[in-house]
Amino acid sequence: MRLRHKPWADDFLRENDQVVVQKPFEMNGKWEELFPMPEQPLHLEIGSGKGQFIAGMGRQHPEYNFIGVEFVKSVIVGAVKKVLQADTENVRMVNENARDLRDLFDENEVDHIYLNFSDPWPKNKHEKRRLTYHTFLEQYEGVLKPGGQVTLKTDNKGLFEYSLVSFSEYGMVIEDVSVDLHADQDPLNVPTEYEEKFSAKGQPIYKCKARFNT
Amino acid sequence: MRLRHKPWADDFLRENDQVVVQKPFEMNGKWEELFPMPEQPLHLEIGSGKGQFIAGMGRQHPEYNFIGVEFVKSVIVGAVKKVLQADTENVRMVNENARDLRDLFDENEVDHIYLNFSDPWPKNKHEKRRLTYHTFLEQYEGVLKPGGQVTLKTDNKGLFEYSLVSFSEYGMVIEDVSVDLHADQDPLNVPTEYEEKFSAKGQPIYKCKARFNT
Repeated sequence: MRLRHKPWADDFLRENDQVVVQKPFEMNGKWEELFPMPEQPLHLEIGSGKGQFIAGMGRQHPEYNFIGVEFVKSVIVGAVKKVLQADTENVRMVNENARDLRDLFDENEVDHIYLNFSDPWPKNKHEKRRLTYHTFLEQYEGVLKPGGQVTLKTDNKGLFEYSLVSFSEYGMVIEDVSVDLHADQDPLNVPTEYEEKFSAKGQPIYKCKARFNT
Repeated sequence: MRLRHKPWADDFLRENDQVVVQKPFEMNGKWEELFPMPEQPLHLEIGSGKGQFIAGMGRQHPEYNFIGVEFVKSVIVGAVKKVLQADTENVRMVNENARDLRDLFDENEVDHIYLNFSDPWPKNKHEKRRLTYHTFLEQYEGVLKPGGQVTLKTDNKGLFEYSLVSFSEYGMVIEDVSVDLHADQDPLNVPTEYEEKFSAKGQPIYKCKARFNT
């Protein structure tokens, strides 16, 4: 959800440069330099929204480094605040429209990509905009290490079904599936804000993890 | 569901040899001879139960030949009656425990396999009994034509999730998925008896179709 425009957002993002990466395209190939533990696996969330997931994952997994990308300025402000509150040094935020991830990351630079409650683009004519369309999978493959994984969570039946087929037709291997994530009662699941809202209504949350087959 | 033992079942199955294949292991490699249209693709249902699916598919798809396998004698009687009532010449029933499908069918003899509401065997120690365990997938691959497909329907969350991963890890391609088949309102879906009962309770029916990648 987009919040109203916040005129102070630019200043806020500039001032909090311990979390917000100021010139992200210049970090291509050297993201590890941003983290106190540079040798740790790099996990990437595309579309971090209000940041509950990435901040929670940062705290839960100190053994990984995390980057959250969110292109809506008024939304990423909230995510940056959550990361600051989480008081963890392994999360950085990027305010860019990552049209091609390969502009931001080098080959083999990323270990894991998270797609949480991405826009389902339900109309057939918008298939190319879905973040699991094959052109996006090519981008992910281009920045992930061999055997790198993509984890998808969504409440959208159509996007979930489409994504399973798209992953598989691309040659990826489906490693893990849940068609009702909250029924699984996984204590390690970090819900997004959106996920909590929809799950509270009794709607199933879908999840799958797929790896590139190398 | 098993009905009580019917002592007249043996006689019934012997007498209705226009539907019930009497010596199925002798048909290996020549199933097409049983059908008026021998050149049609051969579709196989494993575990036909009371036969609503196979009889309905027979009527809906005169362009295919169908074989239903059901090893519970008292259950297949009902299926045979449904096929007789359907008054269609493209369905045959087999009362065998097909421990290895390759004993019944030759290489490349089958075009499509249906697994409808198979026993989920939920305990980990019974994984090998699930009809989507890799040893069964080897059997299916052994009798299907190149690019042959397996369609699974189930109301069981665990079996569905397991099967998607098992198909994919085996190297099969997931072609089609529904995580709520009855929400799709597909007019061509032929429900089983079990499916109607569970769907009426508001529970989602899961479906997927996967092909061997050749």
